[in-house]
Amino acid sequence: MREYFNSDDWLIIEEGFEPEYNRVAESAMSLGNGHMGIRGNFEEKYSGDSLSGTYYAGIYYPDKTKVGWWKNGYPEWFAKVLNGINFIGIDVKVNGLELDIAKCTVIDFQRILNMKHGYLERSFVAVDKNNNKTKIISKRFLSMAESEIAAIKYSVIPLNYDGEITLNPYLDGKVVNEDSNYDEYFWEEVEKKAEDNLCYLNMKTKKLDFRVSCAMKYELSNKNDKFHPKEMTLISKEDYVANLLSVSVKTGDEITLTKYISAVTNRDYNNEDLVNKAVNAVNKAYESGYDNLFEAHKETWDNKWEENDITIVGDKKAQQGIRFNIFHLNQTYTGEDQRLNIGPKGFTGEKYGGSTYWDTEAYCLPFYLSTAPSKIAKNLLIYRYNHLEKAKENARKLGFKGALYPMVTMNGEECHNEWEITFEEIHRNGAIAYAIYNYVNYTGDKKHLADYGIEVLVEISRFWADRVNYNKAKDKYMILGVTGPNEYENNVNNNWYTNTIASWTLGYAMEALDYVKNEYSDIYYRLLQKLELKEQEVDKWKDIIDKMYYPYIEEEKVFSQQDGYMDKEQILVKELPEGNLPINQNWSWDRILRSCFIKQADVMQGIYFFNDRYDLDTIKRNFDFYEPRTVHESSLSPCIYSIIASQLGYEKKAYELYLRTARLDLDNYNCDSDDGLHITSMAGTWMSVVHGFGGLKVKDNELYLSPFLPKSWQEYSFRILFRDSLLNVKVGNSVIIELISGDDVIINVFKQKYTINKNNKIEI
Amino acid sequence: MREYFNSDDWLIIEEGFEPEYNRVAESAMSLGNGHMGIRGNFEEKYSGDSLSGTYYAGIYYPDKTKVGWWKNGYPEWFAKVLNGINFIGIDVKVNGLELDIAKCTVIDFQRILNMKHGYLERSFVAVDKNNNKTKIISKRFLSMAESEIAAIKYSVIPLNYDGEITLNPYLDGKVVNEDSNYDEYFWEEVEKKAEDNLCYLNMKTKKLDFRVSCAMKYELSNKNDKFHPKEMTLISKEDYVANLLSVSVKTGDEITLTKYISAVTNRDYNNEDLVNKAVNAVNKAYESGYDNLFEAHKETWDNKWEENDITIVGDKKAQQGIRFNIFHLNQTYTGEDQRLNIGPKGFTGEKYGGSTYWDTEAYCLPFYLSTAPSKIAKNLLIYRYNHLEKAKENARKLGFKGALYPMVTMNGEECHNEWEITFEEIHRNGAIAYAIYNYVNYTGDKKHLADYGIEVLVEISRFWADRVNYNKAKDKYMILGVTGPNEYENNVNNNWYTNTIASWTLGYAMEALDYVKNEYSDIYYRLLQKLELKEQEVDKWKDIIDKMYYPYIEEEKVFSQQDGYMDKEQILVKELPEGNLPINQNWSWDRILRSCFIKQADVMQGIYFFNDRYDLDTIKRNFDFYEPRTVHESSLSPCIYSIIASQLGYEKKAYELYLRTARLDLDNYNCDSDDGLHITSMAGTWMSVVHGFGGLKVKDNELYLSPFLPKSWQEYSFRILFRDSLLNVKVGNSVIIELISGDDVIINVFKQKYTINKNNKIEI
Repeated sequence: MREYFNSDDWLIIEEGFEPEYNRVAESAMSLGNGHMGIRGNFEEKYSGDSLSGTYYAGIYYPDKTKVGWWKNGYPEWFAKVLNGINFIGIDVKVNGLELDIAKCTVIDFQRILNMKHGYLERSFVAVDKNNNKTKIISKRFLSMAESEIAAIKYSVIPLNYDGEITLNPYLDGKVVNEDSNYDEYFWEEVEKKAEDNLCYLNMKTKKLDFRVSCAMKYELSNKNDKFHPKEMTLISKEDYVANLLSVSVKTGDEITLTKYISAVTNRDYNNEDLVNKAVNAVNKAYESGYDNLFEAHKETWDNKWEENDITIVGDKKAQQGIRFNIFHLNQTYTGEDQRLNIGPKGFTGEKYGGSTYWDTEAYCLPFYLSTAPSKIAKNLLIYRYNHLEKAKENARKLGFKGALYPMVTMNGEECHNEWEITFEEIHRNGAIAYAIYNYVNYTGDKKHLADYGIEVLVEISRFWADRVNYNKAKDKYMILGVTGPNEYENNVNNNWYTNTIASWTLGYAMEALDYVKNEYSDIYYRLLQKLELKEQEVDKWKDIIDKMYYPYIEEEKVFSQQDGYMDKEQILVKELPEGNLPINQNWSWDRILRSCFIKQADVMQGIYFFNDRYDLDTIKRNFDFYEPRTVHESSLSPCIYSIIASQLGYEKKAYELYLRTARLDLDNYNCDSDDGLHITSMAGTWMSVVHGFGGLKVKDNELYLSPFLPKSWQEYSFRILFRDSLLNVKVGNSVIIELISGDDVIINVFKQKYTINKNNKIEI
Repeated sequence: MREYFNSDDWLIIEEGFEPEYNRVAESAMSLGNGHMGIRGNFEEKYSGDSLSGTYYAGIYYPDKTKVGWWKNGYPEWFAKVLNGINFIGIDVKVNGLELDIAKCTVIDFQRILNMKHGYLERSFVAVDKNNNKTKIISKRFLSMAESEIAAIKYSVIPLNYDGEITLNPYLDGKVVNEDSNYDEYFWEEVEKKAEDNLCYLNMKTKKLDFRVSCAMKYELSNKNDKFHPKEMTLISKEDYVANLLSVSVKTGDEITLTKYISAVTNRDYNNEDLVNKAVNAVNKAYESGYDNLFEAHKETWDNKWEENDITIVGDKKAQQGIRFNIFHLNQTYTGEDQRLNIGPKGFTGEKYGGSTYWDTEAYCLPFYLSTAPSKIAKNLLIYRYNHLEKAKENARKLGFKGALYPMVTMNGEECHNEWEITFEEIHRNGAIAYAIYNYVNYTGDKKHLADYGIEVLVEISRFWADRVNYNKAKDKYMILGVTGPNEYENNVNNNWYTNTIASWTLGYAMEALDYVKNEYSDIYYRLLQKLELKEQEVDKWKDIIDKMYYPYIEEEKVFSQQDGYMDKEQILVKELPEGNLPINQNWSWDRILRSCFIKQADVMQGIYFFNDRYDLDTIKRNFDFYEPRTVHESSLSPCIYSIIASQLGYEKKAYELYLRTARLDLDNYNCDSDDGLHITSMAGTWMSVVHGFGGLKVKDNELYLSPFLPKSWQEYSFRILFRDSLLNVKVGNSVIIELISGDDVIINVFKQKYTINKNNKIEI
């Protein structure tokens, strides 16, 4: 952990350049707009250590699986979001000498991410070996308003010399994934052209024929006066096009190259139209000009922040931290494309392949539910609905009925290959069912059940009904051989959370069937036929619910993590001698598995999901038992514990746990932000504040809040969209709730009911 | 399964050539002499499918580990026995056309392994596209008498033409392992020379600097008349040397090339002497001549068979099968080198890296104990004694005291990388302790405990004492998170076999300490000091023995495989619909793990090891419970069940199970003999006959036998060496036991005691 960046309400500031920290800074300074994303790489050449990354949403590659010992049922490939055409590049030469920060003296280096308006700015003075001093200022954004457009202003200021500068804006398709399993190159060139002030490059993936076309144009100016280069050379080589521009400069000039970029893919257009689309888009952008493009981009960001900003008064670090999380969530997923989802690293790195995990349903969905129009969250559900056939195939492959959603996926097919995860971490299926409940409960869109929900719920239920096994001796249904959310135990029997969510799914599916039968009987009977669902099948579900086995620790009166949990040596995290934490870096895997230490919320995850089922005493006993045994070595853990701590009135604990996620990446808490940010856990941080400190719940179509103010804060506020009404909740000495837009809302605060309308804010 | 080879008492006969079965035949026809081994490859070029293999005992390569998801504690490399210099090669051209069976018509093909005298013979007529008919007869052996020597007689008979034949005997070091993880080439050339009638090649491994030097000489004759070639060309290229010999031939000539080969390694000599040693050895062999070399080789085999033949009258297939197993065991390990051990494929293939598994202690040791002088078995123990420091390091790496022997090893370091095996299949440690007991019990060499045994037993005990965990609630010691011999269950709690052998180890270590204290008190006190062993430590062992937890199935009155075994759905193998077996080819790994089906003897392995502890009723109940649940998908399984079935008088079952191993490779039972033979399980087959049908046991320095005759046999006999006395046991209508050599022996047959001496055979 290291507080590397300067604190600021809206900015992430790097002062001075530390080559060995460059990858972390690159991750933090990533830009994205849902359609594409780039790490905070330099435009000019940099020969030092860097993870160069340009990612295009939904463009992936089935990389051949790498495995030591094959197990029946493993997928043959692992889909990875591809590092694609690098479009930011601008090589610079000063009097023939290449500008490369790694090879010159750097003064006054600053790299600043502006979260309010979504751009990255960088400035420094480079002193080369001829003692030429050049100041560089660059500013870039990926347009939130027009997602296929990016623009860069790159200024070069000769401080102590006259001479010649060359600027070489390029598009480079010769890009590899660092995480390629067999060091393969995934792309091949389709088409390219380098003309004066119009270059394009069309690349395709070697498998699946995904195509990405980028086009670029440039503009040169000297302190706002546009001009043409002295000389322009077209460069066109394998997978690469560029315009090499020569400019004569004098001390004090400020030469600005504006680079306009378009990037389109064949996910949106036909192959044959792709180049045209890219060229038209970049021409249009060029005609608009940088300032207009930026203005539209800025406005979109203003609207986003209007919907989902959280303000914190009295703690600059906390303010910066929470905005950093919201900023990256907004960049990663805008919810307009049902085919997309949220990868654990978003567009900030390659780890985990940029694929979809159950993180989406368990952690990200609540964020989008409360901060964006309901169709955004709905699209996340439809993503899974569209993968239903593949999930059924996946279940079949493992010998089961119904649907088993994959642990990790891009197109609906499983691509993970650890048996204890791929085959056993089946609780993920429950999270997908729970997301349907969560969405319907929050939005009130019960029609969704008829249109999409039932099919998914029935197929998941069928899986559970086939996956349980009936234990005659105990007259109970059990679920053997699973890995719960706590991945520090593998292949256990009767993980309480898994058994709980499985049985809950069956019940919710039955409830949903009843609802659809009553409200949309025509759809209901169509569905019965389509699904070939018989009464006996549902009766079996009922029987499973009635006789589901839940491991319980009698002496402690708490739910048992799994059957064998209490046979383990019981130690608390605080009893571990120094140097043991994190155990995933200091212990053998074997020792971790045999220990009682819990990686991430497991029983607690269940208590969070099904909170209303348990009285406060039960929740307290379970929290008091499990929290001291939890090492939170998943970034997804502390937020859930923090929310429950808030509920229990453990305010200090809630805040302490919140801190573990809020600045996880900014302060590189786990020393692993170099390979990308923990995007999905950022939603957990938001949840800690809104569901935890704010106590937000939705029950029977009404909002519930029970906020408290963490001691070190003077005030905080958050915004929530509830069924088209936008509310602002400010928590300070009092709680003030305002309706910003939309219809009147019924809201329960500290168990008292209020109706809020535009003329009437509540102060409690 | 396929009965491909013709039956014969002493021969393995392949009639006619089937290219698609070539790899299986190559495996079966492998030759070895403890020092080196070759698969049954052709001498002349063969462009069809083949696994070319030449292996040198103890020459290995640390291949970089291949793993999908790294777990803390994994080794960085996997040691593999290397495919090294190919020394059998002789390229042949007939009137300029290369002889290649894949490219000509083949008539009367025969490949015959002679097990009695340890050689491989091959003959066929090749008709090439010019319609030239050439008969080839080749015969080769790796000398059992002089292990660094091999010789080949290769005869070429032009049947219908005069003309020119070239013969090109070569040494080729450009050899790869098919199982290389990253397609790397492991060798580089050190030195070579091609002179007229003396070529040598000295190769080294890229890592660890292992060196292998081969030298060769040749002799030409026409029907016994020696002659010189018309022309001789020296060939020397990268990693390759040869003498290309041109010979004018007439129809009816019989041109024989005798190739003499020596192969030495720097495991036995200094690097600088290596080439000299190889050259001297080959010169010496050349001077002796083929016939003398073969005579010495044959005599050694005669002696081997004298010690360990099993004869079966009335069932040729059974006779061939059992000899095939004994033959390959004798070829694989001769016991003269303490640094060597028995890889699961011996010298017959590359799979599993040719490394040492617990198979050696559990299955191979009994064979060598009863069929070879005791120093051979002792060397197998000393192999592990010499690895003790590495086993301690290995335990330390996983966070434990004492010694944990690796699952798979070459030099004592772990090289396997599946967490559920590497970290959890710790019962292997018990087998290494048990082997000490087994050796001492069989040979009476109790001094071994003082010299070697104690140290190993104490360090293994320390591991167990640290690996158990005390369960306060139950006042029991448990062993959590293990994989038992049944690898179809992973990461289970309290595998009965593991708990049993762990606690037994502690007891045996205590007993051994007592013995050494009483008999060799000087050594004892030296050992106490060396081991820093305190009384409290041993007291702790006592406590663990007293309070060890053994899972038990009350309803069935049998030991429970593991804690959760009875929670699984209980089905019998015979209830599985057709098409499910073998489950390892038809089921997902997940389904296998959750099933009650047992891969190999587990509770039964314990009952076999600690047979005297259990009354027949207990054994019967456990057998009756577990046998119907066992799928025997490890080649190591049926033998143990067969032995117990014999003990219970289930003669039919015993024979049926015996059949599953006896011709496992000859009939390619599991369709996997193409990549090598199941060498270690061959010892199990021997055990099925001698320990099972013969009922051999050793107790309190006395032999016990209780033989029965399988129904389909008329008679069988086996030989056993017991403390320097060689006995022949013949079982037919009566049981006849003869002392072939050595002192008088006390032997209990069907519970009656006899003393046997040279003049007095027993007939019962």
